Amino acid sequence: MTEPLTERLAAIVGAGHVSTDSDVLTGRSVDYTGRYRGHAAALVRPATADEVAEVLRVCRDAGVRVTVQGGRTSLVAGTVPEHDDVLLSTERLREIGEVDVTERRIHVGAGVTLADVQRAATAAGLVFGVDLAARDSATVGGMASTNAGGLRTVCYGNMSEQVLGLDVVLPDGAVMHRHSRVRSDNTGYDLASLFVGAEGTLGVITGLDLRLHPVPRHRVTAVCGFADLDALIATGRVFRDTDGIAALELVDARASVLTAEHAGVNAPVEGAWQLLVELAGETDPTERLAEILADAELTGEPAVGVDTGAQQRLWQGREAIADVLGVYGPPLKFDVSLPLSTIKDFAADAEALIADHAAEAIPVLFGHVGEGNLHLNIVRCALVGEAEHALYSAMMALIARHGGNVSSEHGVGTRKREYVSMSRTDADIAAMKAVKAAFDPDGYLNPAVLFD
Amino acid sequence: MTEPLTERLAAIVGAGHVSTDSDVLTGRSVDYTGRYRGHAAALVRPATADEVAEVLRVCRDAGVRVTVQGGRTSLVAGTVPEHDDVLLSTERLREIGEVDVTERRIHVGAGVTLADVQRAATAAGLVFGVDLAARDSATVGGMASTNAGGLRTVCYGNMSEQVLGLDVVLPDGAVMHRHSRVRSDNTGYDLASLFVGAEGTLGVITGLDLRLHPVPRHRVTAVCGFADLDALIATGRVFRDTDGIAALELVDARASVLTAEHAGVNAPVEGAWQLLVELAGETDPTERLAEILADAELTGEPAVGVDTGAQQRLWQGREAIADVLGVYGPPLKFDVSLPLSTIKDFAADAEALIADHAAEAIPVLFGHVGEGNLHLNIVRCALVGEAEHALYSAMMALIARHGGNVSSEHGVGTRKREYVSMSRTDADIAAMKAVKAAFDPDGYLNPAVLFD
Repeated sequence: MTEPLTERLAAIVGAGHVSTDSDVLTGRSVDYTGRYRGHAAALVRPATADEVAEVLRVCRDAGVRVTVQGGRTSLVAGTVPEHDDVLLSTERLREIGEVDVTERRIHVGAGVTLADVQRAATAAGLVFGVDLAARDSATVGGMASTNAGGLRTVCYGNMSEQVLGLDVVLPDGAVMHRHSRVRSDNTGYDLASLFVGAEGTLGVITGLDLRLHPVPRHRVTAVCGFADLDALIATGRVFRDTDGIAALELVDARASVLTAEHAGVNAPVEGAWQLLVELAGETDPTERLAEILADAELTGEPAVGVDTGAQQRLWQGREAIADVLGVYGPPLKFDVSLPLSTIKDFAADAEALIADHAAEAIPVLFGHVGEGNLHLNIVRCALVGEAEHALYSAMMALIARHGGNVSSEHGVGTRKREYVSMSRTDADIAAMKAVKAAFDPDGYLNPAVLFD
Repeated sequence: MTEPLTERLAAIVGAGHVSTDSDVLTGRSVDYTGRYRGHAAALVRPATADEVAEVLRVCRDAGVRVTVQGGRTSLVAGTVPEHDDVLLSTERLREIGEVDVTERRIHVGAGVTLADVQRAATAAGLVFGVDLAARDSATVGGMASTNAGGLRTVCYGNMSEQVLGLDVVLPDGAVMHRHSRVRSDNTGYDLASLFVGAEGTLGVITGLDLRLHPVPRHRVTAVCGFADLDALIATGRVFRDTDGIAALELVDARASVLTAEHAGVNAPVEGAWQLLVELAGETDPTERLAEILADAELTGEPAVGVDTGAQQRLWQGREAIADVLGVYGPPLKFDVSLPLSTIKDFAADAEALIADHAAEAIPVLFGHVGEGNLHLNIVRCALVGEAEHALYSAMMALIARHGGNVSSEHGVGTRKREYVSMSRTDADIAAMKAVKAAFDPDGYLNPAVLFD
């Protein structure tokens, strides 16, 4: 990097918010799991949308590529720079607006964490619709960019259903404010929905209007065991179609063994497959829960939690998974969605595939049954380089063969860009490239993401 | 129109599906209300996406503009041709696929009517999430193009929340199939959400994967009267935030007078303002309804319907509005959304404004309280030309002043394109134009729609 660019960046954001320190850059050039590394030339931390715009203009003029970073919790290496990029961090875009209780919305900066949004919503007697394990680090800007889902998608949908308006700095430095005071708005293209899920390739999200929801009066949580995965799916489907479904999580026994050994959290029930289900609403859903479970082929009595303390204990096993996946080194992660009817076959085929490629590996399967969204993690996977790539590619092909999507809720990032054509047609990819070219003809923004 | 183009179109779709008959073209060049007229050169009715692609290629090569028509129920003159266009009708794209009951979806052609989708869903034990008065004519392709809302938005959202995948023919004749078997899909840009609401300016939607929902077991309907609009809004807000809210409709007394006089449907309750509310769910919501109404400032006893027959009778007043708005000639229509806190003031200001411009006119107000979405209709409005334009523009300015959106659920069409800048910033409009240019650089598709 030439000296003048660093100086020009410092002139925009202040010298204390530009860094070329190699330790800092190394720490920010690795992905969340620790498996993928890149290389950056500088870090810049603008504090306003206008500063973001200036940074983009200066970098584009200098012919330098920019990779955007929020909480850096991407599980598809979406924030790993591959081109000696400038890293643009949103961490100083931390403004939290007042909650509009009547219109049920809040305006926040892109660098605000999910946990902070959840706290602001709760303080106003409302709830934010997305929750996920990385809540203390993940920023809502990054979550919108990847259209993140998580533990409440079955109830409230993904980020795309929470985003009511956006501030976006476009690659040419224009600042777009796409807002309205009311959600119902058909005035022109829904550009907010285009930027949500664009993974930072079309512009930098700097602020968001987020939708909030009423808090349910009652809640009941249960964990139940199944010997057969299809039996779990059948019960899961009934719950998915039930009023007040608030969470519907699959956990396999291998995940439970890991959480017991490494996090001291024992599964509350027996069975090769566990289903965590939560119902919520204005009327007490306990009876409805029991009614559905009475028809289910369980391995034994379900563990039911009717008060907050018991409910938190039932969630511990599911929550602890994120903490134990890395105990044998970086796991190999797959985030896929599958038709409910193919999940059991896919799980068996995936297990055989993994055994073929990595005998020592521990496959762990969990995820969101309501959306057919599975997180398959290969723990203790020593494969690297070509061998890793061979397994990864074979798994992607297997997913496509079972009618699934190669990305369900984590996005494409840098990791999956070569597999996009398994889920998208040539005409679709061409249309995406036309949109990219319309906003970023030089391809300098998030250059390693999404497109091969 | 040159003879060769008609012949070339006939070679694609068959001579029986191309028309230059002046009666046919005149009938198709007027808007739904009868207020706005254009002029077309030919009508072409392709039967497949490939035929649509060929038609677009031939028209583009000939330098002829194309306006797309579905059921022609646009309330913003969205299908009125202004440039001697070829009218491309989707009416032969009528395929109705099998319902996938597990994944709760159906694939249909763009020319299928809403009523046909509703019937297919019902036959499979499911329900489609959008309902509106023009159900027998409105096509799902047009409804997706305008991101239509309607009577169930408070429960299921607009069309954008129902569309899982699209077939779109792009202006260059490429056919894009944006599908997946599973809803959860973050593989690249959400182009489906871009085409939904694009009002046919970016491509011609030819097919749709639509989301279906479980049918609620119980349902209760009530119509209640209020003397004060803010009292109605306050009660409406409680219902909006209640589990199982299925409909939440405002009807003013002037609408009731019209439906009584011209459709023989009398309002079931007294009051300047009526609220029709419906709650539905797996548990009987009657008690919850009574609980909320007990706190409401009603003019008298609410009319409550617990069986289907009684419920249908309670809906008659709301449903009949669409039939009586035109009894004194084409009404002047406004579809807006407003923050709940400004609706009462807006209603008063709008009434004064109308009285100023057209003393004879009858302002009628109804709409969807959950979204703050009002349909203000000026019945018996003899204003035309400049005088009509003056009132229309003044109303748009009033809406913006009260924090509202100039289009809530009807889109922009040709009618509102000069007012887009009241709800969108320059940068937002520039970004929309960049997207338009990426797909349709020659601007030959729906040339009179959306952009000024």
